[in-house]
Amino acid sequence: MAQRFPLKPGSMIGVLGGGQLGRMLTLAAGRLGFDVTVLEPEPDSPASRVAARTLVAPYDDPEALKTLAATCDVVTFEFENVPAAVLHQLKTLGALAAPGRQPLAVAQDRVSEKDFFRENGIETADFYAVAGPGDIVSGLSRMGGRGLLKTRREGYDGKGQTWVEGASDADAAFQRIGAKPAILEARVPFVRELSVIAARGRTGEIACYPLGENWHEDGVLRRTVAPAEASESTREQAVAIARGALDALDYVGVIGVELFELANGDLLVNEFAPRVHNSGHWTLDGCEVDQFEQHVRAIAGWPLGKTDALAQVEMTNLLGDEADDWQALASEPNARVWLYGKREARPGRKMGHVNRLTPLV
Amino acid sequence: MAQRFPLKPGSMIGVLGGGQLGRMLTLAAGRLGFDVTVLEPEPDSPASRVAARTLVAPYDDPEALKTLAATCDVVTFEFENVPAAVLHQLKTLGALAAPGRQPLAVAQDRVSEKDFFRENGIETADFYAVAGPGDIVSGLSRMGGRGLLKTRREGYDGKGQTWVEGASDADAAFQRIGAKPAILEARVPFVRELSVIAARGRTGEIACYPLGENWHEDGVLRRTVAPAEASESTREQAVAIARGALDALDYVGVIGVELFELANGDLLVNEFAPRVHNSGHWTLDGCEVDQFEQHVRAIAGWPLGKTDALAQVEMTNLLGDEADDWQALASEPNARVWLYGKREARPGRKMGHVNRLTPLV
Repeated sequence: MAQRFPLKPGSMIGVLGGGQLGRMLTLAAGRLGFDVTVLEPEPDSPASRVAARTLVAPYDDPEALKTLAATCDVVTFEFENVPAAVLHQLKTLGALAAPGRQPLAVAQDRVSEKDFFRENGIETADFYAVAGPGDIVSGLSRMGGRGLLKTRREGYDGKGQTWVEGASDADAAFQRIGAKPAILEARVPFVRELSVIAARGRTGEIACYPLGENWHEDGVLRRTVAPAEASESTREQAVAIARGALDALDYVGVIGVELFELANGDLLVNEFAPRVHNSGHWTLDGCEVDQFEQHVRAIAGWPLGKTDALAQVEMTNLLGDEADDWQALASEPNARVWLYGKREARPGRKMGHVNRLTPLV
Repeated sequence: MAQRFPLKPGSMIGVLGGGQLGRMLTLAAGRLGFDVTVLEPEPDSPASRVAARTLVAPYDDPEALKTLAATCDVVTFEFENVPAAVLHQLKTLGALAAPGRQPLAVAQDRVSEKDFFRENGIETADFYAVAGPGDIVSGLSRMGGRGLLKTRREGYDGKGQTWVEGASDADAAFQRIGAKPAILEARVPFVRELSVIAARGRTGEIACYPLGENWHEDGVLRRTVAPAEASESTREQAVAIARGALDALDYVGVIGVELFELANGDLLVNEFAPRVHNSGHWTLDGCEVDQFEQHVRAIAGWPLGKTDALAQVEMTNLLGDEADDWQALASEPNARVWLYGKREARPGRKMGHVNRLTPLV
């Protein structure tokens, strides 16, 4: 195994998931001379159209996994709802996955995730595991009567979560999230949302990008500004959080960590994504080595790239028909447009993004 | 036809040729949400492994051309030795090619190319069309007894050319280039080789990148430094040459024009390539919009992008086993490595390149 890394150019990288993150990973891999095999249940996915090979099959399809294991030098994922068992199966088949099964499993369960942070000395909002409405009532009594209820699994972009407004709302709230195992989180009096994108290589080296400041709408990321203005202490806390999580997970690859900044500049962790992250898209045009190439470098056992910002970037997601403005966006000086090649612009769907560059302040 | 352009994201672009230029064009197209179909006779080509579809067939294969015409919204080429008749066939089949047949035909014949420049008031070295050794003798008498003999067609990277050292060498020189129709060019007392990469869009707008200064070894490009230091007059001449050629050819796409600079700063044209050009690879990391995205924008009828340099770049080709140094290159701060995914590192083969960045002077 030691001699497998660093992977030579021409090696095959497997990617579970065929969305825009997979597409941008594949483009980055292409720059370095790698080829990509995508495994994705939907035909005609964005990543499939730039990949050397696509297996259209469920993530847990035994034949597809056998093919991935036999043909790929390393396997990664762009989508954190891939069943963690799939990474176990891949390992059994002799494949190497990065990140591994544990970070994926931890990230898939909001309670495990928060437990993991606490166990590693990283502060989070107060939380309470919920199996039914009774737990919501108990939790609320600890949290001043108000809390955010989220399914433990599979929520993203604001789906599967609801505010609980007092004990009388417990039953209804539990129904609103589909009556599933959940987590109740205390309200955090944060002043803004930040995120840190970081990478850890195969020999344990870590590289962090500057902080991004994020704005959400209806639970979906709208905009990231980076490098975010922040005190040195806040920046140091963010790096310490990323480093702590990466080391504790023996992580290989890029991670995205969402943070809440309190009025005094202190940070709480919201959650992490064991993959490249939407709030890191600014690096595509703002850094020498972007998060996608960085992830490829990390999982391939290559040296990590520089993470300094070369420009101040405002990244705006193009949701639904906003991407129809591509002509105007492409004409805008200092704007760099990325389009994902999705066939249908459903409302709220991430169709692309634009990075607007200004000189560093 | 008017309503075909600008092409919408999701459109299919056909590329004749599957080498590294096709690969980098395909990656650039992918960023903008386009898909690419490659037509290339060799299987497992660099471009094929990032393209949505590959047709492995000769460039003039009737079935392949029918498929290209039926499925691609525009067709371009990365390789100027595609038979010009293929572009005629594509037109007959209803396809739109950019650049068109004429620029390709002109560039394929060194005599037509020089005639074209002269007819458009663009200065070249003195030249003489050669059908046999007798023409070499006649030409030499006009050129002070020494000249560079090149096949009219299909030479590149220094192949198919030889110096003729006096009339007594005429027979042997003609044999050295394979006894083919040729051109004899007068020796130019140039002080350096420059190139200008420029683009012309569907509405006739033109954008030029800053000049590159080029060093060749054994007829192959080794290194480009850009933006090249040059007087304002030299820079203006280069832009005028590019603009003159682009307009006269009613060109759509990116062109690479190789220039000789004389001691007084005046420029002579050496030749042009009707495609993206090796001496423009510095733009990949030195400009907001690189030559590959610029070509895609031009042929798709999109607005052209900014061509300003953001950094001083030294581009070095990685030939043959030089690309084996990828690990060291990837560790070098401020170096950006591009590898083409070619399977075999034959001596002198272009395997990749590295862009080394320093702040603009």
